[in-house]
Amino acid sequence: MLRDPKIPDATIERISLYSRPLEKLLSSETLVVSSEKLAELCKVNPAQVRKDLSYFGEFGVRGIGYGVRDLLTEIKKILVSDREWRMAIVGLGNMGMALVQHENFSKRGYRFVVAFDPDPGKVGAPLTNGLTIRALKEIPSLIKELEVEVGVIATQAGQAQAVADMLAAAGTKAILNCSPIHIRQQESCLVENVDFTVNLDNLAYHLGKKDKPRVP
Amino acid sequence: MLRDPKIPDATIERISLYSRPLEKLLSSETLVVSSEKLAELCKVNPAQVRKDLSYFGEFGVRGIGYGVRDLLTEIKKILVSDREWRMAIVGLGNMGMALVQHENFSKRGYRFVVAFDPDPGKVGAPLTNGLTIRALKEIPSLIKELEVEVGVIATQAGQAQAVADMLAAAGTKAILNCSPIHIRQQESCLVENVDFTVNLDNLAYHLGKKDKPRVP
Repeated sequence: MLRDPKIPDATIERISLYSRPLEKLLSSETLVVSSEKLAELCKVNPAQVRKDLSYFGEFGVRGIGYGVRDLLTEIKKILVSDREWRMAIVGLGNMGMALVQHENFSKRGYRFVVAFDPDPGKVGAPLTNGLTIRALKEIPSLIKELEVEVGVIATQAGQAQAVADMLAAAGTKAILNCSPIHIRQQESCLVENVDFTVNLDNLAYHLGKKDKPRVP
Repeated sequence: MLRDPKIPDATIERISLYSRPLEKLLSSETLVVSSEKLAELCKVNPAQVRKDLSYFGEFGVRGIGYGVRDLLTEIKKILVSDREWRMAIVGLGNMGMALVQHENFSKRGYRFVVAFDPDPGKVGAPLTNGLTIRALKEIPSLIKELEVEVGVIATQAGQAQAVADMLAAAGTKAILNCSPIHIRQQESCLVENVDFTVNLDNLAYHLGKKDKPRVP
């Protein structure tokens, strides 16, 4: 599935980041925030904030700032995070258990409604969130029955692609892949690969440059 | 610590992504790759590949492509991933255990040399990678003694900021934060926050747009 080429994914990701400090400001009853303040809280520059938000129409008042509540409401509409998303987890090793227990998911509207594991020894085991681990062969029926929209893959490398194919065939519209390998984009299903080594490469690049300046 | 504003972080992250298929091409003895092919393998557009690589000087031959081995060597130099980085993990719950066992870290030169946990009941326990869990109070001495450069935080939300402050004070130059909260940038230490809900927000945005096209 192709993504809209007009709005960069980096913009979408920053828009999502902007919502974190806005939630804190709202709960501390701050009414207005300037692009400078929001930029500082998110560690980007103010021009970037203004440019990112301008993709989605006119927000804010020149010289005053953005209304915190209005901006947050708009961002949630843009990100379609003003609703609940029904998710499946596949793979209940350490990574899968960490994801199921992750406090931010349900807080932000991402709810696990079913859990699968390839290991027959784990099938039937209860999870702390009230779910019971199901077998992979139940993927086709349960994804449809429970109206799962997003599949989260936390299996070992060797199983990830086959699981992604099963999820896509069952009607899952998007996959967050937290396995150690990158999986292929599916025709009918968006794939987002989580890769910690990309974050580490980014840090290493900045550290390396600090130690020994490169001549371009 | 401030990052170099000239080369966008998104470019650094894509450069890191480009290295994945290049490694596969190298192991299958492919000598040359076009920007079109590399772009296809990484799901970006070819102009993006050429623009990203142009930040770092002249690569490739017009009409032919890039030498796979040379390009990979250059990327590793750019990312300073042609060396080993010594890392500490703090927090050995499910997330920490998943990270310690993650096969891609050591493969890409990121090696855990020490592990800490705030829970006194876990201190002294052996890990599968041969390390033994140490107490937080040993952070100041062990970070220096073992020449740790990067700290990976996988504690619970409430402990993450204090752990980041301890790591930075002990001389850690960069932090990969995998805890559920964002931690503040440190004066002497780069911080990269891993936030799965940003990836989910990105998927939700694209799914939501598909269901109900937004008028800009």
